[in-house]
Amino acid sequence: MKAILVIADGMADRPVKELDMKTPLEASHKPTLNQLAKTGVCGIIDPISPGRPPGSDTATLALLGYDALKVYSGRGALEALGSGVTVSKGDIAFRCNFATANKDLVVLDRRAGRIATEGAAKLAESLQKIRLEKPVRTSFLFKSTIQHRAVLVLRGPGWSTAISDSDPGEVGERVPEIRPLGKSRNAVLTAKVVNELSSEFRRVLENHPVNRNRIEQGEPPANIILCRSAGTVPQIEPLSKTYRINAACVGATALVKGVCKAAGMELIHVPGATGTFQTDYLAKAKMAAQALEQCDFVLLHVKAPDVASHDRNVRQKIEAIERIDNMLSHLLKNVDISSVCVAVTADHTTSVLTGRHEGDPVPIVIAGSNVRRDDVAEFGERSCAKGGLNRIRGIDLMPLLMNLIGKTRIFGA
Amino acid sequence: MKAILVIADGMADRPVKELDMKTPLEASHKPTLNQLAKTGVCGIIDPISPGRPPGSDTATLALLGYDALKVYSGRGALEALGSGVTVSKGDIAFRCNFATANKDLVVLDRRAGRIATEGAAKLAESLQKIRLEKPVRTSFLFKSTIQHRAVLVLRGPGWSTAISDSDPGEVGERVPEIRPLGKSRNAVLTAKVVNELSSEFRRVLENHPVNRNRIEQGEPPANIILCRSAGTVPQIEPLSKTYRINAACVGATALVKGVCKAAGMELIHVPGATGTFQTDYLAKAKMAAQALEQCDFVLLHVKAPDVASHDRNVRQKIEAIERIDNMLSHLLKNVDISSVCVAVTADHTTSVLTGRHEGDPVPIVIAGSNVRRDDVAEFGERSCAKGGLNRIRGIDLMPLLMNLIGKTRIFGA
Repeated sequence: MKAILVIADGMADRPVKELDMKTPLEASHKPTLNQLAKTGVCGIIDPISPGRPPGSDTATLALLGYDALKVYSGRGALEALGSGVTVSKGDIAFRCNFATANKDLVVLDRRAGRIATEGAAKLAESLQKIRLEKPVRTSFLFKSTIQHRAVLVLRGPGWSTAISDSDPGEVGERVPEIRPLGKSRNAVLTAKVVNELSSEFRRVLENHPVNRNRIEQGEPPANIILCRSAGTVPQIEPLSKTYRINAACVGATALVKGVCKAAGMELIHVPGATGTFQTDYLAKAKMAAQALEQCDFVLLHVKAPDVASHDRNVRQKIEAIERIDNMLSHLLKNVDISSVCVAVTADHTTSVLTGRHEGDPVPIVIAGSNVRRDDVAEFGERSCAKGGLNRIRGIDLMPLLMNLIGKTRIFGA
Repeated sequence: MKAILVIADGMADRPVKELDMKTPLEASHKPTLNQLAKTGVCGIIDPISPGRPPGSDTATLALLGYDALKVYSGRGALEALGSGVTVSKGDIAFRCNFATANKDLVVLDRRAGRIATEGAAKLAESLQKIRLEKPVRTSFLFKSTIQHRAVLVLRGPGWSTAISDSDPGEVGERVPEIRPLGKSRNAVLTAKVVNELSSEFRRVLENHPVNRNRIEQGEPPANIILCRSAGTVPQIEPLSKTYRINAACVGATALVKGVCKAAGMELIHVPGATGTFQTDYLAKAKMAAQALEQCDFVLLHVKAPDVASHDRNVRQKIEAIERIDNMLSHLLKNVDISSVCVAVTADHTTSVLTGRHEGDPVPIVIAGSNVRRDDVAEFGERSCAKGGLNRIRGIDLMPLLMNLIGKTRIFGA
């Protein structure tokens, strides 16, 4: 037996007035999800704990069976890992944004107009050429990932993650200096180095041809790098050891890929998968089905519903869910359901009303020959709450799935 | 968004034969509670954990989001705090009863005929005048609260809570000497001091005019003070810090007010609220609605159903529940439901059959614009068990409510 876990990022939601108090998921046309609900067992999941809004990183850690409250060590290192950067013990990594600021360092656009991946890559290439000798000679790596997203890694040892962010989080705020949190010498040094590096970054970005071209085109220049979420790589046991399985991830966003990498999973590249609304769903379905031939467990992650939710775009969220439904129908055609356990859930609720991650539970369906099928006939936040799984926590899902495919070991005798 | 949490003390119950195996809550006429159930999301709560009967103190701590198993440090200090007494770090406080004993110190009435608050206050005033010099000079405070209830605080440092109670808990038992639990010097000293103080109390009570008058009236004299539940103030983070909210409590019982005080909540005095069956429900509803204008979160506590349950009075319990229902209808008329999340639950099950707190779960309803309304149409122990919240723990309620009103912070990114 094998298992595939499909995570639709931020798919769960709250009732929306313009949808007659249905959620976007409830309002979607989703024959495949409903078919899974009919043939499987449903429930709701608190990714971390009731009411607690998780990030995609902590939620994915939990859904892979880890105790995120104990092992989570910051977004930066996970995003770096997921974009193919090696982050070793002692290194610290930051999640960065290409952003637009005015001369007074007031943020005008936290995503530099969601700059295209190609343009950001060219800028990153130039930033990597900087040599920093003061306050100490510093070995660093700066790499852009998707659109405005980038990672910065300081090669250790000697650094501290006990420092503040330079990302003010809001448009209209001034970019703050990074400060040490506490008085540790490493934290003081780390803050100094990142501040120095940030001002070198600004100097290079200011006159960069990519930005000159953006200004000519009327687009906001990516003239500043905002750093946040300094982190180290979580020290977790790989899934291969915990469950004696081969596991792979089919996904596009660096953050989720980083979590999977930290869990020792193989990262499968999908041409056309972008982590955006325009991602190639069918290519993902195909890759996931192929991966299942080699692996015991595949995580298939789709970012699109979360993007639509953050943009408060109800129609786009529904469309993303319907495309996922279509993706699932392709997946199921290429997977032998008699030997594969199929689970579909979301990593968290993202509200199209607030545009934020919320702490409401997410629906889950598990279909496969070993499940105790219940009488839920529709996949939705409320219908699944009546399912046979009742209400579980994110950390419980992986053991449940591994149990269904015979990969758990007895505790006791 | 704001939230109000209504806690009906001991409202939950077990099936009762004389009610055709309905619970008192199920047998009540409760149109407002049913309306809330119809428009909200329901579930059941294990205040601490399944099967574990909580006190109102531990349950309220849990319902406010604290891990009672870790932070609970005895009833005495909470009751003292709630009756307006300052209890500092190092002080220990006792929950006391005015009781009636015979000459052999056998307890005849643990509540001295539920002596009136005024009479008890006069007695307490006299007890406070005692000066204790042996075995050590002791600074103490003795204060009556409601009816037979009182608090005793020994000003520290140097005391220990590792001592036994002088309250035998049962009528017909002899009042025991307080003993140190273990051999710590502080515990030995504390036991000696409280025993000495107790005998001074008896000496003063014996000839007190209030008691002479009670005997004349055929009422049991309050001639002994029973001490139990030595405690210190729990060291917990105030709600204002955890959730960045202003929080207030509308309630009358010292114990619950003490928990709220320890949680940094404002205590709102309600003229007419007594913590008894005769409490002024409508005054409480009005005060709670007013408090919501200033605060993000209000806890409205009603003691009456618990009192009726301890007295094993089924009819009175039903009447208390029906009065609470009426109180809620007034509350809802004065609260803008579109911007206020309304939750109603009990702190524990108190059985009218056993007269004791039991470990059965309690029903919960949460109504408000963000909730995923379910199809539960009646507020009761069994109907709510079919609700969209499923089964949660007490400690999870506060994060759930704070999530619904936008007061939680993301964990991760």
